[in-house]
Amino acid sequence: MSAISVQSRRRNVPAGFLEALSERFGERFSTADAVREHHGRDESPYPAMLPDAVVFAQTTEEVAWVAAHCNRHGVPLIPYGAGSSLEGHLLAVQGGVSLDLSGMNRIVAVHPEDFTVTVQAGVTRKQLNEEIRDTGLFFPIDPGADASLGGMAATRASGTNAVRYGTMRENVVSLKVVTADGRIIETSSRARKSSAGYDLTRIFVGSEGTLGIITKVTVRLYPQPEAISAAICNFPDLRSAVQCVIEVIQMGVPVARVEFMDSIAVRATNAYSKLDLKESPLLLFEFHGSPAGVREQAEVVQDIARENGGEDFAWAERPEDRSKLWTARHNAYFAGLQLRPGCRASTTDVCVPISRLAECVTETAEELDKASFPYTIVGHVGDGNFHVLMLLDPDNPAEFQESEALNRRLVERAIRMGGTCTGEHGVGLHKMAFMEAEHGRDALDLMAALKQAFDPNDILNPGKIIPSGHNLELVA
Amino acid sequence: MSAISVQSRRRNVPAGFLEALSERFGERFSTADAVREHHGRDESPYPAMLPDAVVFAQTTEEVAWVAAHCNRHGVPLIPYGAGSSLEGHLLAVQGGVSLDLSGMNRIVAVHPEDFTVTVQAGVTRKQLNEEIRDTGLFFPIDPGADASLGGMAATRASGTNAVRYGTMRENVVSLKVVTADGRIIETSSRARKSSAGYDLTRIFVGSEGTLGIITKVTVRLYPQPEAISAAICNFPDLRSAVQCVIEVIQMGVPVARVEFMDSIAVRATNAYSKLDLKESPLLLFEFHGSPAGVREQAEVVQDIARENGGEDFAWAERPEDRSKLWTARHNAYFAGLQLRPGCRASTTDVCVPISRLAECVTETAEELDKASFPYTIVGHVGDGNFHVLMLLDPDNPAEFQESEALNRRLVERAIRMGGTCTGEHGVGLHKMAFMEAEHGRDALDLMAALKQAFDPNDILNPGKIIPSGHNLELVA
Repeated sequence: MSAISVQSRRRNVPAGFLEALSERFGERFSTADAVREHHGRDESPYPAMLPDAVVFAQTTEEVAWVAAHCNRHGVPLIPYGAGSSLEGHLLAVQGGVSLDLSGMNRIVAVHPEDFTVTVQAGVTRKQLNEEIRDTGLFFPIDPGADASLGGMAATRASGTNAVRYGTMRENVVSLKVVTADGRIIETSSRARKSSAGYDLTRIFVGSEGTLGIITKVTVRLYPQPEAISAAICNFPDLRSAVQCVIEVIQMGVPVARVEFMDSIAVRATNAYSKLDLKESPLLLFEFHGSPAGVREQAEVVQDIARENGGEDFAWAERPEDRSKLWTARHNAYFAGLQLRPGCRASTTDVCVPISRLAECVTETAEELDKASFPYTIVGHVGDGNFHVLMLLDPDNPAEFQESEALNRRLVERAIRMGGTCTGEHGVGLHKMAFMEAEHGRDALDLMAALKQAFDPNDILNPGKIIPSGHNLELVA
Repeated sequence: MSAISVQSRRRNVPAGFLEALSERFGERFSTADAVREHHGRDESPYPAMLPDAVVFAQTTEEVAWVAAHCNRHGVPLIPYGAGSSLEGHLLAVQGGVSLDLSGMNRIVAVHPEDFTVTVQAGVTRKQLNEEIRDTGLFFPIDPGADASLGGMAATRASGTNAVRYGTMRENVVSLKVVTADGRIIETSSRARKSSAGYDLTRIFVGSEGTLGIITKVTVRLYPQPEAISAAICNFPDLRSAVQCVIEVIQMGVPVARVEFMDSIAVRATNAYSKLDLKESPLLLFEFHGSPAGVREQAEVVQDIARENGGEDFAWAERPEDRSKLWTARHNAYFAGLQLRPGCRASTTDVCVPISRLAECVTETAEELDKASFPYTIVGHVGDGNFHVLMLLDPDNPAEFQESEALNRRLVERAIRMGGTCTGEHGVGLHKMAFMEAEHGRDALDLMAALKQAFDPNDILNPGKIIPSGHNLELVA
C-alpha cells in the first residue's frame, strides 16, 4: 500500500543529541532499524516513516527529561503507546524521537468509592478491566484495538459503549502531562466536577501528542451491571433500523450498545464466526441493568423494532450467547477481510447527527456499489458514527486511489450534513486535509494559536492535526 | 457588605470610543448610572464596579463589531447574561464595556431526533424548557438561578441533576463564539462525538468570558422521563448518608438527583415551606425511568438506606408531592435567610471526591459551629459538591471577615482532600487566590498561555480567572 506517501521534512538532529539520550537511557535507547521501523508506523495504510531513535520510558520524570532535551534542540518527539492508531498519528514525518510508553503499565491507584482509577499511560484497556475486576467496577470505553489508556485519551477514543457511557471526552477525570519544555502538570483534581478555570483535561484529550505527553490517566469507572442481555433484529433497510434507534432513545431506554451491520457485514460474520444470522441489515443491542430492568428494556425495544419493520427479534440472556454475538461483532473487521483473501483494508470514520445517518449511509452505499472492490459497513448507530471497510488489492494502486476518492466524498458529505471527518479515530495525517472544511479557517487559526502557545518550538508530534503551511500567527 | 473590595485598575477609554458605540447602537447603548450600576454587579458579596458603558446586542454580528472595536482600542469587554453569577464574574474591575446579551433570547433550532437544541446565548434555562416542552424532551442542567444558557456554558454550571445527566461540560454540543478580534467561529459540528482536533467547545465552556464571547449554544436534550418519583430519608449523621449514596451508585441505580440537607437546613425549610420533615440530616432522592423502573430504584435505595441507619424512608410518586419537596429544596437558600432576618448570605462551593465528602463536611461543620453567625449546609452528594450558607449581619464587617477566613480554610481543606475550590459557581474574582494552590504554578502558566494566545490584548473580561500579576509569558 505504498500508493500514498507523506511529504517528509526531516529535521536535523544536532551532534551529540542522540549520544546524550543513549547515555541517559542505556539499553532503553535504540537506533536499530527494526525498532525504528516498528515505531514509525501504525495501523493506517501509510508506509512507515522512521524516527531517528526510540526511547523506552518508565517514569514521568524520564519523559520530562526527554521533552526538555528535545525542546532544547528542536527535535521532534512522538509519544507511542500500543501503536494501534489508524490515521498515521505515529509516523515520524519530521524524524525525531519516538517515546515508547508501553513500559509504563502500572495501575497507580483504584478508588472504588469515587468510581475512579489512575493508571500509567501504557496500561491497555483490557489489562485495566482485568486488574479491577474484583472491585465490581469496569471501564466501558472499547475501541477495536487493545489500545493504551494514554493513546485512547490522546485520540479521544470511543467504541461500542459510547451511546450509554460516553467517550474518552466524558470519561477522563484528570491527566498527568509533560509539557513541551519538560514541566509536569496535573490537569485537574479528582473531584467529579469543577468550574476552576480552563479545562486543561479536555485540551489534552484528543490532542494526539501535539500539546503535551500524557503519562498518567485517571478515568471514571462504572458498576458492572447486575444483568446484561443482548438482542439482534433484522430490518428491511437501514432507514427503518435508524428510525428504530431514534425512537428507542426517545423512549428513554438506556441502551448500552446498539450496533448496525449491513447485509454484507452479516454475511462475512456468518462465514467467519460460524453463525447463521439472517443476511439483511441488522441491529445488535446490549442492555445493562437489573434483571427486571434489562427484560423491560428488551420488551420496549422489541415493540419499537416491530413497529419499524424489524423481524426475527431474538435476545440472548446467557453469557455464552451474548459473548458469541459480541465477539462476532468485534471480529467484523477480520471477517470482512476474509471476503477478499489477501486484501488490505482501509477504514473510514465519519459521524453525523443521527437524523442524517440513514441518508449519509445510503448515499455512501450507492457510491460504493459502483466501486471496483468489495466493502462492508458497520456503525455505532446511537452516535451517528459509521465505518466503511474497503477491501483493497494491495498490489493495485488504482484501487487505493479510488478508495481515497470515495473517502474524500464521504467526508465531504458528512461535513455537509452537519457531521465530522472523524468520530473516534482522530486526525493524524489522513484527516488533516478536511480540518479547514470542517472547522473553518478562523477556528483552525485558534487551534494553531493553542498549539503555538503550548509548544512554541513545534516539537510535539509535529506535522499532525494542524495542516502544515497553516497560518501559525497569533489571532491578534 | 462593603467589607471587601477589589483593587481597580481602570483603563483609559480613548476619545471617540464611546461615541462610535453610541452611533452604532443608538438606544441600545447607555452610559446611564442606573444601567451601569445594574451591569457592574452580580449575586456575589462584592460591591458594584461599574463599566464605562453598556451595549445591548441582538445579533452575533453586533457582538463581533463590538469585540473588534474594543480590541482595536484595548478596551475591556464583559459579556453579561442574566447577572446571576456568584463570585464577582461580572464586575468591571478595569472598566470597559458590559455587553448585555439578554436580548438574544431566541430558540434557533430544535432537532428532536438528534436530541439537540440551538439557542441564542440569552435564553434562560426555564424559558428553554418551556419552549421545548411539546417535543417530549427536556434540558436537565439547573443551577439555582434562572441563568442564561450562555452564562451557564461560560461558568460550566451544573445543579441538582448532574449526578445523572452531567454538567455543562458534558452537555454543550457546540458553541458559536466571537473571538477577541471579532471573528465568528463554530466550535464544533452537531455530531454527537468527534475526534477532529482540539476541543474548542470545552475550551470555551468554563472560560467565564475571558477567551471569547458565546453567542449561541447547542446543548443535548433528554427524553422527559416516563415516570418520576422522589424519596426522602433521614440519617443519624452525614457519614451514613454519604455511605448510602456511595452504595446506591455502586449498585448501578441511575439516581437522577440526590441532595443532602443538614438538620438546620431542614429546620429552616420546615419553617419556610410549611413542611414537617424530621429535623435531622436528610437525603432527598429523585428517580427517573419507567413506572416499574422507578419503583425498583426506590426499593433498592430503601434497602441500602436502611442498612446505613436511614429512617422514615418516604417516597412521593404524586407530582404535587414531588413538586412540594423539590420546591422546598430549591428554596433552601431563602429558607436559610429567614433564620436570621435581615442577614446577607455568603455561599461556599467546594467539591471533593465523594470518599472524602463526609470528612470534609464534618470538619467544616465543626469549625462553623464555633462561628459567630448561623449557617446551613446543603449538598449535591452524588457529585461530592456542597454549599455552606453563611448568614451574616450586613452591618458587621467582622462577621464578613470571619466568613472569608472560614471559606479560605474550607477551600484549602477541599484542595488537600483532592478536590476543587469551585464545583459549579466558577472562579470570578473570589476564587482567583486559590488557583495556584489547586492547579500548581505550571498548570496555571498553561492557562495563562492559552489566555494570551486567544486574547493577546487582554480585553475579554480582564482580571478574572488568572490571578493578576501572574506570569503571562509563553511556556517556551
